[in-house]
Amino acid sequence: MTVAHRDLGIDTRTRTETLDITAQVVDVVGRSEIRSGICVVTIAHTTAGVFVNENADPDVQRDVLATLAKQVPDDGDYRHAEGNSPGHIKSILVGTDVTLAIRDGKLGLGRWQGIYLAEFDGPRRRHVTVTLIGDASG
Amino acid sequence: MTVAHRDLGIDTRTRTETLDITAQVVDVVGRSEIRSGICVVTIAHTTAGVFVNENADPDVQRDVLATLAKQVPDDGDYRHAEGNSPGHIKSILVGTDVTLAIRDGKLGLGRWQGIYLAEFDGPRRRHVTVTLIGDASG
Amino acid sequence: MTVAHRDLGIDTRTRTETLDITAQVVDVVGRSEIRSGICVVTIAHTTAGVFVNENADPDVQRDVLATLAKQVPDDGDYRHAEGNSPGHIKSILVGTDVTLAIRDGKLGLGRWQGIYLAEFDGPRRRHVTVTLIGDASG
Repeated sequence: MTVAHRDLGIDTRTRTETLDITAQVVDVVGRSEIRSGICVVTIAHTTAGVFVNENADPDVQRDVLATLAKQVPDDGDYRHAEGNSPGHIKSILVGTDVTLAIRDGKLGLGRWQGIYLAEFDGPRRRHVTVTLIGDASG
Repeated sequence: MTVAHRDLGIDTRTRTETLDITAQVVDVVGRSEIRSGICVVTIAHTTAGVFVNENADPDVQRDVLATLAKQVPDDGDYRHAEGNSPGHIKSILVGTDVTLAIRDGKLGLGRWQGIYLAEFDGPRRRHVTVTLIGDASG
Repeated sequence: MTVAHRDLGIDTRTRTETLDITAQVVDVVGRSEIRSGICVVTIAHTTAGVFVNENADPDVQRDVLATLAKQVPDDGDYRHAEGNSPGHIKSILVGTDVTLAIRDGKLGLGRWQGIYLAEFDGPRRRHVTVTLIGDASG
């Protein structure tokens, strides 16, 4: 059984967006000797998140962000003086970690699934950690 | 330390519903030799999710679905042409993976907790993976 | 590779609140021999949750709870007779498990991140499990 960690630095470009980081995570899994186990993706921030969803039609991501903006409006009644409470709340709703299976050396994503970084208070450099735990055989 | 994966195929019956899959996951844990570790349940879809919640009163599940439908209405302002943007968004809010402890060979569910598959764009056959990592002793 | 589980009993004080449990989780990691791996925090309840978010300004937690209360109002149209449907729904939205990396024997939290227990139907004694999987070296 082996553990491996890799850091990804991702530069976001706007205040609120989603960025497809599937290729970077797949690359970490591909470079590892682990054939069977799990892959945990975590983000070390409180106004960003990671999630798994459709990577085919970009309109899906637009609809996700627009709906979150209605649920957690920028002009809501917030006390936190920095003005980024909506980003904190969206981060909690979306979540800051994702876990996937690794089987036969490959990440267990469904056909339409991609891994996304959600930026809710950018643009910034965001730090993502990919942790793999598993067996070199199997 | 051992890793084991099992696939579950779950047929949903309506457009939007929750299905209790606790028995299937408990069965996977029971058939495994792993006595101490974790159990990760992932779903390979972008309009479905998995979550842990009450498995006693079915009204809870009805209230969950009704509240999600208000937060993410079917007639919202969506661009994604397939018409299932609400399903994608609910999937992100609910999440596509759940992790539980395994102790003394048993799944670490609380007294009232069950594991649910959330269908947000059915009916369909859905694919769930149960991954166990842990020790045969302990 | 080693697995360790620790139980935390947390007494909440009001109906709805968030409690910073970072110190307790950091203590579990610090007492363990595991230097590289993951830390999984799960809560065994259906009207509570665990999440990672800002631990600096308490106004953030107030804004989180106020926004969740608007999204899932106490006076909504619920059928569940116990009256705690909002708690169940918030638990699903926030989630009941969090996974973090362990590197060099330390929990992989970002600079502003803390681990929170979310109480949505208190006050009660809540049971949290911290599970560590990893290597004593590395």
